[in-house]
Amino acid sequence: MIIVITGNGKGKTTSSIGQIIRALGHNQKVCLIQLFKGESFYGEQNILTKLVGVDFFSFAKKHPFCFKDISKQDAKQDCFDAVNKIEEIIKNNIYDLVVLEEFNIAVRDGFIENSTLIDLAKKLSKKSTVMITGRGASKELIETADLVSEVLEIKHPFNKGIQAQKGIEF
Amino acid sequence: MIIVITGNGKGKTTSSIGQIIRALGHNQKVCLIQLFKGESFYGEQNILTKLVGVDFFSFAKKHPFCFKDISKQDAKQDCFDAVNKIEEIIKNNIYDLVVLEEFNIAVRDGFIENSTLIDLAKKLSKKSTVMITGRGASKELIETADLVSEVLEIKHPFNKGIQAQKGIEF
Repeated sequence: MIIVITGNGKGKTTSSIGQIIRALGHNQKVCLIQLFKGESFYGEQNILTKLVGVDFFSFAKKHPFCFKDISKQDAKQDCFDAVNKIEEIIKNNIYDLVVLEEFNIAVRDGFIENSTLIDLAKKLSKKSTVMITGRGASKELIETADLVSEVLEIKHPFNKGIQAQKGIEF
Repeated sequence: MIIVITGNGKGKTTSSIGQIIRALGHNQKVCLIQLFKGESFYGEQNILTKLVGVDFFSFAKKHPFCFKDISKQDAKQDCFDAVNKIEEIIKNNIYDLVVLEEFNIAVRDGFIENSTLIDLAKKLSKKSTVMITGRGASKELIETADLVSEVLEIKHPFNKGIQAQKGIEF
């Protein structure tokens, strides 16, 4: 099964983290591959690295649109490394759930080809549930997926100029 | 801050679980009060009961629309007990995050007054971030909240007659 969680609202990453916790609670084996998430920054990273049953990989920790010291080429190379890691996982897939965190962003911003992500998702889904998150999921990925939720922002304090808060947004 | 996660799509409960994991990762103190969630059924319950820093209470484990052995009056009484527990928490609130899981359903189905839930949320939010989940959030709660996401179902395998799967829906 391929699950896509997209949309502009808060709740996509937390949803994938909750999904991982749910799977772990049934003694399932989980792999989380994150893009564009700074290390030891998001609270969940501190918990996930301690839990048994989840393998956690992080690539392209800085997005070039947010950090000036990272070029688009750097990000593309890092995403290429992430794709290689997924190809490696597919060869000997031991996971019940594979979460590809923010991969929609990588496609949207041209770091991973849309067709590459869809191909990886299809191959992974032969053995695992695959969950892909990030705003801006492609039309083709939505068509390919079995379950799609769109998280809409109805109201957000960012719009009142309030900054991201520890424990809430990270 | 009051956060509401509503809508008909998959990802509301998992989002609240992810939010709890995020907060715990920053050593924050969390309280989860669940309604309508059978015990030892949802995978996340097996993990949350083992993690340090989260107090977990469950009321009205069976929803009368799903279980014939439960009357509406039983559910109303159980929800009343949940409200009392929250009133107790408000008196000596030690939590950074309080999650009121499926409380929108309790209001929608007439087990808790809309004004009661809003009043509790306001009181809790003086010391905690409050997250309220469940489809069908009331207009007044949405107006009161600081952050609202609506999880829309774009596609779900239930619609093809596929049953709920372990590690995915529970």
